[in-house]
Amino acid sequence: MSDTDDDAGLGCPVPFSQYDRVVLAHGGGGRATRSLVESLFRAALDSPELREDHDGAIVSLEGPVAITTDGFTVRPLFFPGGDLGALAVHGTVNDLACCGARPELLTVSFVLEEGLALTTLARLVRSMGEAARAVGARVIAGDTKVVERGKGDGVYVSVTGLGRVRRALSPRNVRDGDVVIVSGPVGDHGIAVLVAREDVRLGTEIASDQGEIASLVHELLDEGVALHVARDPTRGGLATVLVEIARTAGVSIVLEEPSVPVRSAVSDACELLGLDPLYVACEGRVVLFVAPEHAERALAIARRFQPDAARIGVVTEGPSGLVLAKNAFGGERVLELLSGEQLPRIC
Amino acid sequence: MSDTDDDAGLGCPVPFSQYDRVVLAHGGGGRATRSLVESLFRAALDSPELREDHDGAIVSLEGPVAITTDGFTVRPLFFPGGDLGALAVHGTVNDLACCGARPELLTVSFVLEEGLALTTLARLVRSMGEAARAVGARVIAGDTKVVERGKGDGVYVSVTGLGRVRRALSPRNVRDGDVVIVSGPVGDHGIAVLVAREDVRLGTEIASDQGEIASLVHELLDEGVALHVARDPTRGGLATVLVEIARTAGVSIVLEEPSVPVRSAVSDACELLGLDPLYVACEGRVVLFVAPEHAERALAIARRFQPDAARIGVVTEGPSGLVLAKNAFGGERVLELLSGEQLPRIC
Repeated sequence: MSDTDDDAGLGCPVPFSQYDRVVLAHGGGGRATRSLVESLFRAALDSPELREDHDGAIVSLEGPVAITTDGFTVRPLFFPGGDLGALAVHGTVNDLACCGARPELLTVSFVLEEGLALTTLARLVRSMGEAARAVGARVIAGDTKVVERGKGDGVYVSVTGLGRVRRALSPRNVRDGDVVIVSGPVGDHGIAVLVAREDVRLGTEIASDQGEIASLVHELLDEGVALHVARDPTRGGLATVLVEIARTAGVSIVLEEPSVPVRSAVSDACELLGLDPLYVACEGRVVLFVAPEHAERALAIARRFQPDAARIGVVTEGPSGLVLAKNAFGGERVLELLSGEQLPRIC
Repeated sequence: MSDTDDDAGLGCPVPFSQYDRVVLAHGGGGRATRSLVESLFRAALDSPELREDHDGAIVSLEGPVAITTDGFTVRPLFFPGGDLGALAVHGTVNDLACCGARPELLTVSFVLEEGLALTTLARLVRSMGEAARAVGARVIAGDTKVVERGKGDGVYVSVTGLGRVRRALSPRNVRDGDVVIVSGPVGDHGIAVLVAREDVRLGTEIASDQGEIASLVHELLDEGVALHVARDPTRGGLATVLVEIARTAGVSIVLEEPSVPVRSAVSDACELLGLDPLYVACEGRVVLFVAPEHAERALAIARRFQPDAARIGVVTEGPSGLVLAKNAFGGERVLELLSGEQLPRIC
């Protein structure tokens, strides 16, 4: 059960017939399902396609389209800086942006746990709707299943996103000399969720960075920046993303570790908890690989979105997949993919 | 935890590195996730798009496209006649067919419970791959999350399907006089799952009807049948689907109840359990609304796929949403949407 299922005090303007919590009948496909869809989902996620009330949505798509899917199981459902609903939309939209695609169409599939407060669900779904509208995407199809108490954890959601590709971004475009930029401080999301969950006491509150990076990616494309790859450093963090790209592109990367922006509260928390901020997840940052002659311009644009955006490394010839992190004293270490599980259920 | 998680005896040809069960690290986005994706998912669901190893797949789609999404939480994971993997593919493909679309592209999002046997997961994923290949669809993107033991039930999966629309099928096309055909006996799936789960003893084993109805729908279109609506009677069963269509189309439907094919083992089980077979879910049947002059031909085609396909009713002028079931003795009852939950987690 969600640890935030008792938020009746927040109120809810939508009448959910006779229920105030999710019951198995809400997943039965009959009257209760219909009432939930109409009073709650459709109210928050309205679109012409949802109004059609069919088994699927019919849309018109021309040319190359990016398609991505992700499950979201973050715990707790609400955390400083965000919630599962907004995170699910942003995570999907960001993956589309990393494919060079516009955020256009979303589908959502909910697995609800019996007993979840409908006010909690309504808050999450409204948050989803707001996040989608803010980036110009719309929800065109959905589904709800209900599992028995103790067989879920409040809400799990899977989101699929579709959008037309403006320019193909792929690790295969990476060139020797490309400059690596990160769009803001890393690790805020992972630490914010961990703190919210584990009741760790820190001096400063850390808010998640969850948010959309599509606007930045499209601004770079609008301004003609030679962007080769964009990748959001979610699970596995910055280090894992760099290793993955270096492997797929068949290049080496030198990371100037002191240049990586990390908030002092995050680095303090990491030290306390024995975590390496390079492996802690972000949910609103993007790593950009840019042709060297466009690096200054790309950085200036990124800083319009987040002042701490920074140039953190460079692509070099060298063994495929090698990522070398250089520290402030000239020392070096080889970064690997995240091994084991650092922070379960951060997204 | 799945009640079938101990199937080591079935063997598994794929080496899953050091693990034989799902651990939290499989959802961490690092090395264990990668190993699971490469050794298990990609082996069973290979496609050019999955091999690209990007945040999303890039595909080319022209013209109207149907998009549908569904979550699958059926319990148990394996039941007579099917399993969650095949059901998830067929359920999605069938929704596409009901939109008049070809089954082309699928995305899959898994929520795995810590402790699930990897052999169980491999069986389900292979079953998915086989079901997809059999209908000519391919899996182009996926995601895996892992939740702690006791926060799931083995595997939940959400599938999104995409396919080009051949002809728009919609309740809005329904006309007075249209003939209603069902493609085979109803209720097998719901009863098969219930029996597998609850350890009910019946004289005869009932196998689920789960399977694809896309071939039938496309055969009808190929042969030029004036098919107005196709809808698969899943959750809520035949009765709920008829009421939904009657409401959306703004018509009445007269159902000749004795014409509805129900296996005797299913009707016996329903009597024993106090269920109405008209409300029990199918997962491999379709209800067809056909222009009267094409009804005989449509029925003959349907019987090539399933000999028990039957003409069960007719669309009439009358109050919008009214579905009248006539019994063998001339009596009538009004059918409603399923009220409450009959059989939780049948799909």
